[in-house]
Formats: sequence, structure tokens, C-alpha cells
Amino acid sequence: MSVRLRDSLATTEAFDALFSDVSVLQAMLNFEAALARAEARAGVIPETAADVITKVACAENFDVKVIGLSAAGLRAGTLAIPFVKMLTELVRTVDTAAAGYVHWGATSQDVTDTALVLLLSRAAGLLAEDHTRLATALCKTSDEHAGTVMLARTLLQPAPPTTFGLKIAGWFSAIDRSWTQLEAQFEEIRTVQFGGASGTLASLGSKGVEVAELLAAELELSNPPAPWHTQRDGLASLICALGVYVGSLGKMARDVELLMQFEVAEAFEPGGNGRGGSSTMPHKRNPTACAITLACANRLPGLVSSFLSGMPQEHERAAGGWHAEWATITDAVEATSLALASMVEVAEGLSVDPNRMRENIAATKGLIFAERAMMLLGAKIGRDKAHKLMNEAAQRAGQSGRKLVDVIAEMPDVRTALSADEIASIDKPEEYLGSAEEFRKRIMSRE
Amino acid sequence: MSVRLRDSLATTEAFDALFSDVSVLQAMLNFEAALARAEARAGVIPETAADVITKVACAENFDVKVIGLSAAGLRAGTLAIPFVKMLTELVRTVDTAAAGYVHWGATSQDVTDTALVLLLSRAAGLLAEDHTRLATALCKTSDEHAGTVMLARTLLQPAPPTTFGLKIAGWFSAIDRSWTQLEAQFEEIRTVQFGGASGTLASLGSKGVEVAELLAAELELSNPPAPWHTQRDGLASLICALGVYVGSLGKMARDVELLMQFEVAEAFEPGGNGRGGSSTMPHKRNPTACAITLACANRLPGLVSSFLSGMPQEHERAAGGWHAEWATITDAVEATSLALASMVEVAEGLSVDPNRMRENIAATKGLIFAERAMMLLGAKIGRDKAHKLMNEAAQRAGQSGRKLVDVIAEMPDVRTALSADEIASIDKPEEYLGSAEEFRKRIMSRE
Amino acid sequence: MSVRLRDSLATTEAFDALFSDVSVLQAMLNFEAALARAEARAGVIPETAADVITKVACAENFDVKVIGLSAAGLRAGTLAIPFVKMLTELVRTVDTAAAGYVHWGATSQDVTDTALVLLLSRAAGLLAEDHTRLATALCKTSDEHAGTVMLARTLLQPAPPTTFGLKIAGWFSAIDRSWTQLEAQFEEIRTVQFGGASGTLASLGSKGVEVAELLAAELELSNPPAPWHTQRDGLASLICALGVYVGSLGKMARDVELLMQFEVAEAFEPGGNGRGGSSTMPHKRNPTACAITLACANRLPGLVSSFLSGMPQEHERAAGGWHAEWATITDAVEATSLALASMVEVAEGLSVDPNRMRENIAATKGLIFAERAMMLLGAKIGRDKAHKLMNEAAQRAGQSGRKLVDVIAEMPDVRTALSADEIASIDKPEEYLGSAEEFRKRIMSRE
Amino acid sequence: MSVRLRDSLATTEAFDALFSDVSVLQAMLNFEAALARAEARAGVIPETAADVITKVACAENFDVKVIGLSAAGLRAGTLAIPFVKMLTELVRTVDTAAAGYVHWGATSQDVTDTALVLLLSRAAGLLAEDHTRLATALCKTSDEHAGTVMLARTLLQPAPPTTFGLKIAGWFSAIDRSWTQLEAQFEEIRTVQFGGASGTLASLGSKGVEVAELLAAELELSNPPAPWHTQRDGLASLICALGVYVGSLGKMARDVELLMQFEVAEAFEPGGNGRGGSSTMPHKRNPTACAITLACANRLPGLVSSFLSGMPQEHERAAGGWHAEWATITDAVEATSLALASMVEVAEGLSVDPNRMRENIAATKGLIFAERAMMLLGAKIGRDKAHKLMNEAAQRAGQSGRKLVDVIAEMPDVRTALSADEIASIDKPEEYLGSAEEFRKRIMSRE
Repeated sequence: MSVRLRDSLATTEAFDALFSDVSVLQAMLNFEAALARAEARAGVIPETAADVITKVACAENFDVKVIGLSAAGLRAGTLAIPFVKMLTELVRTVDTAAAGYVHWGATSQDVTDTALVLLLSRAAGLLAEDHTRLATALCKTSDEHAGTVMLARTLLQPAPPTTFGLKIAGWFSAIDRSWTQLEAQFEEIRTVQFGGASGTLASLGSKGVEVAELLAAELELSNPPAPWHTQRDGLASLICALGVYVGSLGKMARDVELLMQFEVAEAFEPGGNGRGGSSTMPHKRNPTACAITLACANRLPGLVSSFLSGMPQEHERAAGGWHAEWATITDAVEATSLALASMVEVAEGLSVDPNRMRENIAATKGLIFAERAMMLLGAKIGRDKAHKLMNEAAQRAGQSGRKLVDVIAEMPDVRTALSADEIASIDKPEEYLGSAEEFRKRIMSRE
Repeated sequence: MSVRLRDSLATTEAFDALFSDVSVLQAMLNFEAALARAEARAGVIPETAADVITKVACAENFDVKVIGLSAAGLRAGTLAIPFVKMLTELVRTVDTAAAGYVHWGATSQDVTDTALVLLLSRAAGLLAEDHTRLATALCKTSDEHAGTVMLARTLLQPAPPTTFGLKIAGWFSAIDRSWTQLEAQFEEIRTVQFGGASGTLASLGSKGVEVAELLAAELELSNPPAPWHTQRDGLASLICALGVYVGSLGKMARDVELLMQFEVAEAFEPGGNGRGGSSTMPHKRNPTACAITLACANRLPGLVSSFLSGMPQEHERAAGGWHAEWATITDAVEATSLALASMVEVAEGLSVDPNRMRENIAATKGLIFAERAMMLLGAKIGRDKAHKLMNEAAQRAGQSGRKLVDVIAEMPDVRTALSADEIASIDKPEEYLGSAEEFRKRIMSRE
Repeated sequence: MSVRLRDSLATTEAFDALFSDVSVLQAMLNFEAALARAEARAGVIPETAADVITKVACAENFDVKVIGLSAAGLRAGTLAIPFVKMLTELVRTVDTAAAGYVHWGATSQDVTDTALVLLLSRAAGLLAEDHTRLATALCKTSDEHAGTVMLARTLLQPAPPTTFGLKIAGWFSAIDRSWTQLEAQFEEIRTVQFGGASGTLASLGSKGVEVAELLAAELELSNPPAPWHTQRDGLASLICALGVYVGSLGKMARDVELLMQFEVAEAFEPGGNGRGGSSTMPHKRNPTACAITLACANRLPGLVSSFLSGMPQEHERAAGGWHAEWATITDAVEATSLALASMVEVAEGLSVDPNRMRENIAATKGLIFAERAMMLLGAKIGRDKAHKLMNEAAQRAGQSGRKLVDVIAEMPDVRTALSADEIASIDKPEEYLGSAEEFRKRIMSRE
Repeated sequence: MSVRLRDSLATTEAFDALFSDVSVLQAMLNFEAALARAEARAGVIPETAADVITKVACAENFDVKVIGLSAAGLRAGTLAIPFVKMLTELVRTVDTAAAGYVHWGATSQDVTDTALVLLLSRAAGLLAEDHTRLATALCKTSDEHAGTVMLARTLLQPAPPTTFGLKIAGWFSAIDRSWTQLEAQFEEIRTVQFGGASGTLASLGSKGVEVAELLAAELELSNPPAPWHTQRDGLASLICALGVYVGSLGKMARDVELLMQFEVAEAFEPGGNGRGGSSTMPHKRNPTACAITLACANRLPGLVSSFLSGMPQEHERAAGGWHAEWATITDAVEATSLALASMVEVAEGLSVDPNRMRENIAATKGLIFAERAMMLLGAKIGRDKAHKLMNEAAQRAGQSGRKLVDVIAEMPDVRTALSADEIASIDKPEEYLGSAEEFRKRIMSRE
């Protein structure tokens, strides 16, 4: 199974394999084999039939027929119809009697939804690995930069300083909270779909719940109180959680992308390995991984919206809302994996320029410390007078291009009120970090 | 505060009051008063200042100025800037010194986000009341109709029977699961926003966390590990949960709307009280409440999408993403309240026609029981032979317009294999409900 | 190129081929070859280089390398970077000097955007064929059913009659208007993208516009006034037009799906050919094509939303917004083709049951004609008196289950005012069609 | 009518007035009065009735009842039902007979849709004024900065230079193209909705089309071939065009916001007049208008998505899809007006710092000219050799922090091949602008 060019910017290789033809087929086959075994154990169908079905239910047996399957699935509105037909035919070549027990009591939506659940469970595992790497890298880098001062920026304008450690901790807090919710949704959805034609398992008589229980056990899924056919809240909550998680990754990507600007140049995603660093411009490094992440963050909201729009599904099987889901949810999962993999690379390879961070603070000529100066002075001579003096100082500094603290140092009223040391401390960023480190530690200890 | 015409189909009165001018202003004032008291207790500002600010912080003092406030808010990009100015001026008329301590150490986003959180917490309470009514009504009606048989319908076509009790239980299961998640998100977001200019509370020196703690306590909110400025995952998860909840309500609305069709006529939302029942057509009842709910279910996905799109917010305060949130999230909450109130009315006033349900089953002439007939017969004469016979019977029944069971009863092979009682049982819906009641009870016992 | 299972419900075969690896590659190669030829004609590069590049630029030469290309594209954030490298290497094996002129003066976005435009132009042609079939079928069927009376339905409840001809004309009017707009957008976007590194074509000196003109001519595209890099309004308008068109198809699908309900049974999409008609239930026919169309109508709005969200692209090349577009727009085009192909099948194979339409009118017992009765009577005895009488009649008819006209015929006041013929005409649907046929003709003549 | 606080960041005052209670009411009244006059002229109702209805149909007569109207509208699912009742009652107080002719032959959707169309037409006029101002300002500023060189930036990294004139022309081109399409959609939708209960105007007998024609003329709207009830493609295309237009405004806002960064500081939206320029930081100016525009660009895609999702409307009147439209489309129009007004202010008050633009170019130490150097050199000594030399030069320049051109000037091979003047010209931005001005003029002449 190869990645197709048109998908090449939409998925990682691991996830392309997860949703490959073989993988999708095998998940559907796993359902059918597990169903047969469950029904045999419940005495609904013969053991031998279950054995044969299990043996035949291997994707390798079907690969060559995929094209036909796909076209037939399109016509039928669901893969399940031609899939069951194909499986039945193949079983029949081995054991005619067993063929009669394929898909016994189940409906198309049972196999399709459960196969999706099985694939999503595997997706959860793959994402978990990458998330752990990301979280680890973020915590480590946050610790390293606990004391690295930098400009905070509001509406893209300089504000009093913060630390890069706290900034990273902020990314971590949102990404980790979002992950906790996403993981919980993946867990919620690990549940079998099995309701038969009408959601009553009528054709299994009184054995419906028993078979459902055994089927769930076979597939290592939980057995819900009842089939969830047209109640799509579980999947909807999952895709929402994907959306929020990718949004949190996108926030980090946005920040890194902005920090990488040539004019800012404070932190950089790693280059190399095909990332398109420029040979002619060694200082130039494109925020490729960030761009990919932001592209995913651009795609997710629309996918979430599509899924939610399809929730009001008709009666016991929808005409349309259900049919749209597979493409939407697999796209969302793939885009999540891509955004995550990209940010793992960014977090693990982030290079930081603390000197440049200081230079960028200095370039504001201390204007971001006007608030601080006013508070120091206000404590001595009253807020109103202090406010007036500081406005004057800021104006003068702004017009002359001199440092605020130098202008202040020349003001007689200030020199009377503040010591030289106090004046000198005004534009030391380390002195004006408030609870930055305490906040950082509170976030980290919460982990 | 009156509902505006243009909003009249977008909100209930309770929620219109919640987001009214007075209510929004008061929430912002509550933040400022609580902040002043917290800072006084922490020794950051004088007690007297806190007293004055608290006394002045009453929406009635501001009402006349709302128009100017709104226009100024638009220019400033946030209400908070003119609001703080206005509050400061008003405090100054009472106590000049106290005016200097208004909004001390806080930033615009602190008061805006926290006010939003306070309003959302009240919204949660209002919604909870309605949800309880809805859940109660659904459980009661499900119990009453545990034995009411009706057609299941897949892709809007008849399928083997189910019970109306199970159908309602299905609605309940999704709505109640979605509510549990929504309630949890409302709880998660009950958290103060307080970070000052850069999210470090620098101007409070070492007292930032202490003041934050006291402020949270004053407002009966929790104090997060750190300010969450540009980490919007909490609100994002909340609006997603609103979207899923309304989607689950929409599913119920879709079903009721379809059941109310003149040609189906199995269940009806209540008319009367301005719902537009027709005097000239007593049998006609428009699914007005369902239509309103579906309109809300139409609006939510787009709102969710907008919110998620705004998540990658720049640095310590976004330029745009944040500014879009208020309208989006309040619209989402209002639409949720409207959908919920509508479905409460539907659930509490639902009228059901069990006879018509039976007639609609009968109108299929037993064709939905072909599967059942085949299974009964198959057990006696083998699946393959049974399948062939049943196909023939179904064809004949379809062409002649006779009941399937009558056609079957005339087939010699069938009469040999099945007793007259067995044959007669084939199209009794009660005999082919499988685990319907067991599923229903499992859902209900989970509550 | 085979359809992948996971895409099998998301695209038609024609469109899968259009966006296949070979097809995408060839479109990119066509750009490079055309560029080389244009530059040779403008005297920018040697003729021989253009010849070699043109000769090499054949997808067959690259097919085996697609996997590597895709992975490298992912890392680089765009296919174009490894693609140009690969093409250059291949040209070098033929002619070292020519290799130096591959992609001369162009940038990644130039080849990617132009390749997309080329593929979209071909998509337009494919869609046009299907649209013509659809429009033709709708016009024909509308003419055939100009006189077929049926219930109108508002909020899914019966209303005074209309004709099926007018209903179809309504579908046609929206679908055809939407197509006109879509076609215009496809035409608008048939424009070359060519701006070089910064959108100035600096490396071509004074020959930029000349080369652009020649390049456009080579590709049979128009040459825009200037490169459109980060101005995505053209593509945005196109995807919006796809969204509206599919919405109009979805309206038709919704109606057919509702008409196909067993309880309504007035019109049906064709079954057979894998559409999942049921052998055991000959009367059952699933609205599969409608469901697929509605699934597409569910997907499009989210895709449109994603595209629009990405429009505020940074400076001369976006970091993220651009990278998300390819997947979004190709998904939208594919879903459009699928919805359209499905509705062509529905329109061409629609089966209609005029008798059932009449029966469904009759089943309302004439209550939908109460308005008509009142107007006839009002002309004779005054509206107020007529209104009172008709209310009474409707009540009585509703309670007794008798036909309205029969109840009316017994009322002495009515018998005095209206002749027996007039009374008998009240519930003749043909008599109460107003301007239905005139409207239909106006729509059709507009074509 | 006052702006409400909760809406204060979502609409301009002009548009708040447009969708105020009085305005909405008057639009509905205008429909009813025009209908009465049209019907009188067609001989359908008495002249006197039309006179009375016209006289009564003034919003001032209703204002006090708005609250009740709104609540009743909510219950009925549409304002139209209580509105017509209220109007009828008021007419009755003047002339009992005339009351019988209020809303004659019309349905709720007729008055609601037509009122919306009337309001949208007025919106179009208001937007047109602002668009003209914006376009004028952009053209003027583009001309002024035709020769102002600045860095192009791709993926937020420096690229070879462009002109600010061309950059502005790019904004203009997209905004103006989008406006042309938006204006066309406003024109398309200026069409009356008039179909009566079922879209056939049955109650007008043979006079339906004639009355529709006269009604349209009265309202200065066009008369469509037939009612467009559940065919919402016209409005859908309009909201899409709003989305694209705001997206184009958002692109401009994004660029300005990025240029305003303290570290870039090349262009600025105007401060003052409540825009939140900082008194303590004179150099700080928040991109408030850009942030508001981007907030609108964040909201629009979700609104477009909601509208498109509602397009598959049932039969002759939808149950839900239609009910959601009003809020969605008026929100979209308001957000558009706000984004546009904001960008008018930006365009008219933009301040530009050409010196800083040059400094930012210089800060790259000429690395962005490596491509140019290579081409100059390649023409003399062959591309391969030139490429190798330039790589070496770029590496050396990057490591040493010296200007590229200084490093180059020391290379013996270069000095042999290029004159001192040629070398000196390498990092002159004016020399490497390609077709920038030609592109700019082509855009401008297209206007």
C-alpha cells in the first residue's frame, strides 16, 4: 500500500498503512470471524462454521478483488454489502454449509462501524506514542528555559517580559489537557456495534445480548448497553477531541512560526533532512513543520463541522449522514497524526537563541517597563504624580530613541525618589517576571 | 432587556436575559469588585479602595452609558478598555484614591474571559434544569411504550419491528451521555482568568498566585495552575460539547418530525399555545419545536468550526482569534438552550398513536418478516431450500398484494414443515423483537 | 491507478483517475515543459534545453519513484521541491546543460497551483457532461409530469396540491442556476500562476510578463494581470460554487428520499445494478443514490469552511493556509462528481407513481382544500360567515373521518350558496393548481 | 434601537440599525402593503382595502408590541405568523372589511424571505459605499508606493524584494474581484418571494403571475420565473460571496498585522480615536482594526458552512433548514460590514515607513540576493561553477555575519568575471524587482 501523491501532504506513513485497503479489509474480516466464534460459543451456529469463517477471514485472500469491491461498495452505498457477498463466496468454496452462517444476524452497519472502531483503537495507540514524545520534549525544554527571559507579546506587540520556559509550559498545558480528553474519547468509543437489521438482534432470538457480549470480548472491545446505530455522539465527541487537540498543536505551531521570523529569530524548528533549509541562505529556515501543523489545524474544524452536521440521523439507519462519516473521521485522524508528528519533530529539535531574546527586549529601549517604573515611583511619590512623570519620560524616550531608563535617570524628581540601583533595576527583565516561574512549576507539577 | 426581533428565533428568554447588557456588565463588575477585595486581603491595595470599588460595581450605575460603552468597545477591540475607564471614572467621583486601584494588575482579557466564565456557569445551571426535565420525560415515556411495537426504519424504508420504548431509550442514551460530557466541560471551565499584561502577574510582584487564589475564591471559581490566555482548549471543548449535545437533540427532533408526517402519523409533538396547529385542518400539526431544534442543530456545527479555527492564537494575546470568540460561544449557548427547551416541550407533550404504528406494520403485508420466515423454515428444511421458497413467496406476495404469511400458508413444502400456529406467528411483531426490551432496560439502568 | 477502499465512497472512478499519481505528476510536468518552451521562445533559455525538458517531462518516466516523492514532499511541505529535483536529475541524465534550465525562474507554488488549475479544468469538462445529462433528464421528466398532481408539503405536512412537473422544475432551476455559477468559476480559475520566488519574476529581468504570456498560451490558460500567490479568492469562489451546486443536488436528493418512503411511495430512484434492491422485499428499494448525494452535501460545507478559513495568507507565500488547500479542494471536487453522478442516475431512472400521488391527496379527505372552499363560499356569503362555516366543517370532518366536501355538501347554508357542481369541484386537485404550470413553463423557457 | 453589549464587537452601528426591530418590522410591513396594492391593481382585492393596509403598515404602530411579537414568533417558528395576526388586528380597528384582505394569498415564507431581500438590498448599498472608499484608498496608496522597495516574505521568511505598491495592488485585486462577485450576488437576490401556501399561488386563481409581477414592481425587485421557496441557492451564493470577500479583507489584515510587529515595523494601521494606542509606549500601536477584521474572517467560514448545510430543504417548506437562515445570514452581513469598515480605516490611515523597509532588507546582509548573484555570474562562467561559488560565499557570509556582496567582492573568480559596478549592484533592491511595477500597473488598469 503506497501513499498516493494527492494524499502526501495529508497523512503520515503509519496512518496511511492503518487506513490502507489491507488494513480496512482485515478489520472487517476480524469482525466477521469474531462474530462467528461468538455465535458458535453461544450455540447459535455450528463450531465448524466458525472455524472455517475464521480461517478464510484473512485479507490476503481478498487483495486482488479490491477494485471490484470498491466499485460495488460505491453502488451499494456501503462496502459492507459487496464485502459480505465476497466473503460468503470465498467461504462457500471451502465449506458450503459454513457459507450460510457468514455475517449471521448482523447488518452492514455492524461490520462497518465496528471495523472503524477497531482501526481507531489502533490509531489511539500510535498517537499515544507520539504524544508521549511530544510531552516529554516540551517538559524538558521548558525546564531548560525556566530562566530564559523573552518578550511577551500581545496582539503581536511587545509586552513586559516572560520566560520561554513558561511559554513552553503554556503549550504543554493545553496539549496535555487536550490529549487527556482525546484519550478518554478514544476509550469511550472502544465499543462494539451490533444490532442486526433493526437494532434489536431479532434474528438471534433471546441470545442477542449474550452473543454481543462474547463478540465484544473476542474483539477486546466493550459491550454497550445497546446498539448505537444512529446515535453518533461517541464518534462526534471523538472528532471534536481531535479538533481541540490539533487546535492546541496549532497554537504552538503559530508561536514557533512567529518566533522563527527573520526579524524575530528567537527560536527555530529544526531544519535538515529534506526540510528545505536553503543552501544559499544558511540563516533561512522555513517553518515547514509548523506550516504543516497549521494546515492540519485549518482542516480539522471543517471536518468536525461536517461530522456534527450529520448527527441528526434518521430512525434506525441514516440516509446520508452515516455515509459521510468514514471519509470525514479518517481524514481527521490522519491530519491529527500528521500535525502531531510534525510538532514532535519541532519540540525535539527546537533551537533557541536566548541572546536574541534579550536583544529583542533591549530593542524596545525599556518602553515595556514603563508600567514597572510607574509602580516603583508611585510607591514613593503617589500614583498620580508618578503617572504624569512616566508619560513624560516615555514620550521623551520615544521621540529621542534613547532608553527609557536613561531618560528617567535624568529627571530630578525621580532621582530624589529612587536610588541609582533602583533606577538601574527598572529595565532588568529578570526583576519583572512576577509569578512566571511559579506558574510554570504549577503546570509541570500537575502532570 | 428585551429580546430583539432579529434574535427572536435564536434564543430563549432566559438566555437572552443572561447575555443582556445588564448581565454582561454585572459579570464584569463582579470580577473587578472581587479582584479589589482579593487584593485588599493580600495587602496589595487598601481595604478602603476595595470597599469603594465593590460599592460602585453595580450595573445599575452604568446602564445609561451602555451605548457609548458599546461603540467604544468596538473601536478598542474589546469592551474591557472603555469599561475599565468608565468604572474608574465612576469610582473617582466617590474616592479619588480608590480610582487608582481599579483593575489593579489585571488586563482586559482577565476581566472579559472571567466574566464569560461567570455567565457560562449560570448558563450551565439553567440548562441543567431543562435537561433534567427532558431526561425525566424521556425515561417515563420510554417505560410507557416498552411494549409498543412499531416499524424500525433503515434508510427511511421499513425494517423488522422495534419498540417505541427502545427508540426513545436510544434518544435518551445519546442525549444523556452528551449531557454528562457537557456538564463536565462546564465544570472544567469554571476557572478564573488572571494573568495581567503578560500572563506573569508581574505588577503584583511575588503576590500573584496568592491574589489569584483569593480572587478565584471570591468568585467561587477554581484557580488554574496558570493563566490560560491563549490556550483556548477549555472553551473549545465546551463549545464542542454543546455541538454534540445539540446534535443528539437534533437526532430526536429528526425522528419525531418524520413520525409526524401525515402519511406516517405515529407520534406528534404537542400543538397549541401558539404552535400553529391549524384550525381548518385539525389533523395537521406542524413539527414546529422539532424544526426549531433542527435549526439549532444546523447552526451549531458552523459555530464550533469557527471557534476551533481561532485556536492557534498568537503568543500571549491573539489578534483576531480571541476577538471572535464571544459572539460565537454565546450564540452557541443560546442555540443550545433553545433546542433543549424545544425538546423538553416535545418530550413532555408527545402524543403517540400505537394503533397507527401497528397499521403501518400491517401495511407492509408482512414483507418485513421474510427474514424471520426463512429462519423458522430453515431450521426445519435447511437454509438453502428455505431461502429459495421464501424468495418465491416474497415475489408472489409483492406482485399480488397479498400478505406474505397467506402466500406462505399455501405452499405445500411450508405446510409440511411448519405448524399452522408457527405460520401464523410469522408476522406477529411481538414475536420478533429480539433483545429490544433487554436493550431498553440496559440503557435505563445505566442512568 | 485503483480506487482505494477508504476512498470508495468518496469519489467516482473518473475523478479518481483525474487525481491519480500519474495525472498529478503529468500536470506538473506539463507546466515545466510549457515553461521551458515559453522561455525558449522568449530567448531566456536555449531551445535545446526546452526540447530536452519537454521530451523528459512524461509521467511514465517517474512512476516508479512516486513513493519516495510523496515522502519527500511531506517533509518539504510541498511536492514541488522533490519533484523539481527529480525532474532535474532525470533531465541531467539526458543533457547536463538542459538540467540547469529546469523550473527556470519559477517557484514551488507556481508549478503546484498551475497543475491544480490544469486538473480543475479537466474536472470542469467531466462535470459538464454529467450536468448536461442531469439537466436534460430533469427537463424531460418535468414536461412529462406537467399534469401530474400531487400534494405539496410544508414542514413535512400536506398542503394544497402542486404538480410533480413543477416540483422537478424547481430542482432544475436551482441546479441549473448553480451550475451556471460553477461553470463561470471554473472559467475564472483557468489562469496561470507564475510569479517566481517573490511574485515579481525578478530572475527573468524584463521578460517576466512576456514569458508569462507565452506560458499561459502553451497551457491554454489565461494570463492574469499579476501572480495571485496569496490571493486565493479565485479558488475560494470555486469551492463555494461547488458547495452551492451540491447543496442544490442535495435538495433534490432530500425530496426523492422522502417521496420514496414506504408510507409515501410516490417516486423512486432506480434500483438494480448493485443498488441493493432487496430480493426478499420486492417493494423495498433503498434511496442509495440519494443517500450518497446527501453524504456529499454533508461533506461540502465543512470543506468550504476550511478553505475560507485559510484565506488570510501571510505575505507572498502562506505558512499553512496554502498547504491545506490541495486536499480540501480535491475532496470537494470529487464529492461533487459523486453527488452529480448519483443524481444523473436518479433523474434518468426516476419511476413515478401518479396514482399513489392522487391517493395521498385523497387520504387527506379534502382537508387541504378548506382554504379553497372558504374562498368560493366567501365570494358568495362574505368571508366572515364563510370562515365560520368552514371551521365547523373541518372540525366535523376531522372528527368523523369523513371527506370535507361531503360534510360541506350537507350544510344548508352552503347548498344555498353553491351549486352541486361547485361543491363537487372543491376537492378536485386539478382545479386548485393556480399558476403551477405557468411557473413551470417560465422556468423551462429560461433555460 | 441601541447596539447591545453582546453584539458590540460583531456589528457596526449602521448595520445594527438595518437589522433593528423597527427596520425588520418595516420591511415586513412594506411587503404587506405592496402586496395589497398589487392585488388591488390586479382586481383581486378592493382598492379601499389596499389603501387602509398601506396606511396602517407603519412600524411606529407596532413598536410597543415587539416583545410579545418576538415571543410569539419563537413559538410559531416564524415571526410571520404573529406579525400577520397583529397587522390584521390593527387593520381591523380601522376597517373590518380590509382586515380580511391582509396577507391575501401569501404565506409566511413570502413575507419573511421578501423582507430579508429588502434588507439585504439596503445592506448592499451601505457596503458599496465603504467598498468604494476602500478601493480608492488602496489604489492611491499603491500608486504612492510604486517605488517603495521592501522584503517579500515567503513562509514568513525574507525573500527577494518586491514593492509595497505591488503588495497593496495584490490586496486590491482580490478585494475588488471579490466585491464584483459579491455585488453580482446582491443583485441576483433582489427578487421577490411570492408563492402562497404551496408555491402555486392557487388562491389567486389565474392571477398569480400578474400579481407577482405587480408586487415585484412595487418593491423595486425583480420577479423570478417562479417562487424559490426551498431553492436557497441564491442566498447561499450570496453568503459564500460574503465569505470570500471577508477572506480577501482578512488577507490584507493579516499582512498589516504582521508588518506592524515591533520587530518589523514597516507599516501601521492608524491609532488614535479610541484605538488603544498606548500613552506609555508611544511606539506601540495595537493592530486593533486588523484584529477585528481577522475576527470577522474567523466567523464567516462557519456561518457559510451552516448556511450550506441547510440547503437540502424538504419539499415546499423546510422544517429547520429555513428557520436557521435568518440568524446566519444577518450575522454574516454584519460581520462583513464590520470587517470592511475596519479595513477602510486601515487603508485610509495607513502609515508606512519606507526607511525601515530598506533597513529590513539590509539586515539580511544581502543573502536574499544570492540567486541574483548566481545568475549574473552564471552568464559569465557557467551555472555550475557559479552555483558552487555562490554557495561558498553564502556560507562564509552567514558564518561571519558580513554582507554577501563584500564576501563576493573578495573572490578572485568573481572579480575576474564581474566589474566592480556589477558586483556593487547585486544587493541593490531596485535592480531586482523584475516585473513588479508592470504587474502593479496591469492590476490597476484592469479596474
